[in-house]
Amino acid sequence: MKSHTEHIIVHTPERYAFINITSQVEAAVKKSSVQEGLVLITPMHITAAVYVNDDESGLLDDIHEMLERLAPSGKNYRHHQTGEDNCDAHLKRQLLGHQVTMAITKGKLELGTWEQIFYAEFDGQRPKRVLVKIIGE
Amino acid sequence: MKSHTEHIIVHTPERYAFINITSQVEAAVKKSSVQEGLVLITPMHITAAVYVNDDESGLLDDIHEMLERLAPSGKNYRHHQTGEDNCDAHLKRQLLGHQVTMAITKGKLELGTWEQIFYAEFDGQRPKRVLVKIIGE
Amino acid sequence: MKSHTEHIIVHTPERYAFINITSQVEAAVKKSSVQEGLVLITPMHITAAVYVNDDESGLLDDIHEMLERLAPSGKNYRHHQTGEDNCDAHLKRQLLGHQVTMAITKGKLELGTWEQIFYAEFDGQRPKRVLVKIIGE
Repeated sequence: MKSHTEHIIVHTPERYAFINITSQVEAAVKKSSVQEGLVLITPMHITAAVYVNDDESGLLDDIHEMLERLAPSGKNYRHHQTGEDNCDAHLKRQLLGHQVTMAITKGKLELGTWEQIFYAEFDGQRPKRVLVKIIGE
Repeated sequence: MKSHTEHIIVHTPERYAFINITSQVEAAVKKSSVQEGLVLITPMHITAAVYVNDDESGLLDDIHEMLERLAPSGKNYRHHQTGEDNCDAHLKRQLLGHQVTMAITKGKLELGTWEQIFYAEFDGQRPKRVLVKIIGE
Repeated sequence: MKSHTEHIIVHTPERYAFINITSQVEAAVKKSSVQEGLVLITPMHITAAVYVNDDESGLLDDIHEMLERLAPSGKNYRHHQTGEDNCDAHLKRQLLGHQVTMAITKGKLELGTWEQIFYAEFDGQRPKRVLVKIIGE
């Protein structure tokens, strides 16, 4: 069995951002030299998500709008009694889906035609880490 | 380490459909001859989801109704400016949960009493692929 | 390749509860003696979820409130025609996110500073099982 661990650093100037990290995951897969296996891509922060969907700017806005509708910012959340102001970020990351696991087949990240891997930041403006863990043979 | 890759083809006549694919995943596990491992079941399309829940027709309707309430079809989404009309499908798949990973124990897919694996189609009427990736020993 | 399988038993006196199971997952990782690998943590029941977020009591209430707003209890769901009264539990577990997979690096569960693993019960008052499946080397 082979394994490979990598931490992608993301630092968004905005509070909310969607960053396509597909090429970085593909580079990690190549570096691992795993031919058949699994790759877990998971944020190490609880106000961010990793998800797979289309890289189309209108859709990114639609996703943001839905999340803001279902888990609005600026509300009087109980979590804010701790001094935090980012409760919506904790909630949005759960609704969007925390993390993904993808397949490595014949040495390549196996993706459908339109599948792109995104890091979704809901409380940015500081460096964050995304863990890429590969196991296989 | 052993690995096994399979693509289940699903073609639903309706736009929205829930298809129980548990027996197909079990067949893939058997074919892999893996005794202890993990199986990733993930759609290769971004308007579909794989999830685990009860196979009860009332519940399937309730899930659909909730998703339609939270991510309605027919709205004036920005994504539709590209000519698409399926933005709700992209959103519903995120809310329901994109994919699942299950365990293989003593050569079998390990499921709780009521756990059934479903393919959820939100933009059907054409053939779609579900990737089943197994690794283990 | 090594593997390790464990079932954590959870029995909550309340119908709804969030239980921090991080130390139990860490104990399973230690017992496995896996140095590099993946650990799947997944409930074997379809009215529960495993998720990762902050262990802060206000946030736990905020998560519960959001889920109750998006998938209310006490509604006249179709699933209840079977005699069940827990449809909201089936729905809440999908919205929160069914399960997680985490990384094992240098023999330890690799977690970000604030990442804690929770079992979310939406239909408790009886014993439930959480499957912990570890594979690696």
